[in-house]
Amino acid sequence: MISETPPPDLTAVPLIDVRALGEALAAFAAERNWDQYHSPKNLTMALSGEIGELSEIFQWLSEDDSRSVAVNPETATAVREELADVMLYLVRLAYVLGVDLNEAVIQKLQKNTENYPVDKSYGSNKKYDKL
Amino acid sequence: MISETPPPDLTAVPLIDVRALGEALAAFAAERNWDQYHSPKNLTMALSGEIGELSEIFQWLSEDDSRSVAVNPETATAVREELADVMLYLVRLAYVLGVDLNEAVIQKLQKNTENYPVDKSYGSNKKYDKL
Amino acid sequence: MISETPPPDLTAVPLIDVRALGEALAAFAAERNWDQYHSPKNLTMALSGEIGELSEIFQWLSEDDSRSVAVNPETATAVREELADVMLYLVRLAYVLGVDLNEAVIQKLQKNTENYPVDKSYGSNKKYDKL
Amino acid sequence: MISETPPPDLTAVPLIDVRALGEALAAFAAERNWDQYHSPKNLTMALSGEIGELSEIFQWLSEDDSRSVAVNPETATAVREELADVMLYLVRLAYVLGVDLNEAVIQKLQKNTENYPVDKSYGSNKKYDKL
Repeated sequence: MISETPPPDLTAVPLIDVRALGEALAAFAAERNWDQYHSPKNLTMALSGEIGELSEIFQWLSEDDSRSVAVNPETATAVREELADVMLYLVRLAYVLGVDLNEAVIQKLQKNTENYPVDKSYGSNKKYDKL
Repeated sequence: MISETPPPDLTAVPLIDVRALGEALAAFAAERNWDQYHSPKNLTMALSGEIGELSEIFQWLSEDDSRSVAVNPETATAVREELADVMLYLVRLAYVLGVDLNEAVIQKLQKNTENYPVDKSYGSNKKYDKL
Repeated sequence: MISETPPPDLTAVPLIDVRALGEALAAFAAERNWDQYHSPKNLTMALSGEIGELSEIFQWLSEDDSRSVAVNPETATAVREELADVMLYLVRLAYVLGVDLNEAVIQKLQKNTENYPVDKSYGSNKKYDKL
Repeated sequence: MISETPPPDLTAVPLIDVRALGEALAAFAAERNWDQYHSPKNLTMALSGEIGELSEIFQWLSEDDSRSVAVNPETATAVREELADVMLYLVRLAYVLGVDLNEAVIQKLQKNTENYPVDKSYGSNKKYDKL
């Protein structure tokens, strides 16, 4: 008799809940009459801008030094703010596109699990199509 | 008699909850011995890569056409996957840095509320220091 | 008698000459003992940072308004500086990698000419693999 | 008698010459009726896309390994193509904006020379406003 454990049903639990932020940002934009600027195209550019600022924090640091950026008083505030900005624009972008981020994340994790089986990807930094 | 409503206490409620994803990604990386690659510097570059892919979806589209990207069958899957990828790397980056994203988001929203008072920023696309 | 014009030999003429800048930047870095920071990885992050700043100039503008950014007194200086910064880091990056940019550009143009035949790509914003 | 050497007149020599490429790209776009897509806003997004692809080459590599990317057969072609793509879009963007890149580069170098005096910036990875 076969009794394999079924794979965990990742869809059973939310991995993220960003709905309250989505609503808060929608209200923030509506109050300021900003919906006209918040096209997906523009929000994607805003994300690029924030990732650029995040990159500037790390660009001349070694990988080792990059690990202490959030506790180093010179960079702690900046890195927290940039991470927050990326989250704000990401959630806003998904909201205006009508994408359920939790669902999208769960599906992507399932795909990653298939693309990167432990035995093949262990200790490797290669992309799945080169494994 | 004055009875102004006090401003909402944004710190009272979580705006986002991404802890389950943070733990799932930590387990995913640990199982594959990937912690060695997941320095904040490297994860920031990975974020740049994903934002680049997101930009490619939008680069030649008008703002109007950008609004239907998630329902257009040619781009719907791609845009969902890219949004998910940005979320995965963002949550992973905050995790390895030890940054509480909910706290960071709440503080950034409070700052935005101060920087962009409704009367000054209504209908404007200017940065706060130019308002 | 067939007398087709042969395709122009793109390799016969330099399309760009950035060697003087490459040398100037190498001297600039050497004088300041900056070679230690100028790894290709770091310079790529610096490029991301500059592209991010460029994106911030354009993010809330319509495509039409984006056309006058270099003559608009509010943005003219900034956009010139960001374009220059991208060029500086790009030339520096190619230099430390030992890549001949003129050669690379010529080969890429030849590839683009093959990938985008005029009849198929006329008026289209699709990537070559979707034409 | 004072006989200080005057600072070199950087404006006397071109540091870069990208005019032939600018013309080649303008012809390439015109032939395909692509001017409608080549707004500065869109070209900036295309630049983000290319920088993203460049970042993906480097994201999991150590700084040391990043130095051999252009000679490693697995990445040599890709890195050359991405560098070329960045140059193509950068020159195209400057062209549609009407910005003289050589002039912009010279002025930026002069500014960098002022912002980073050798004695203050020697061996430092700090931005000029933190020196």
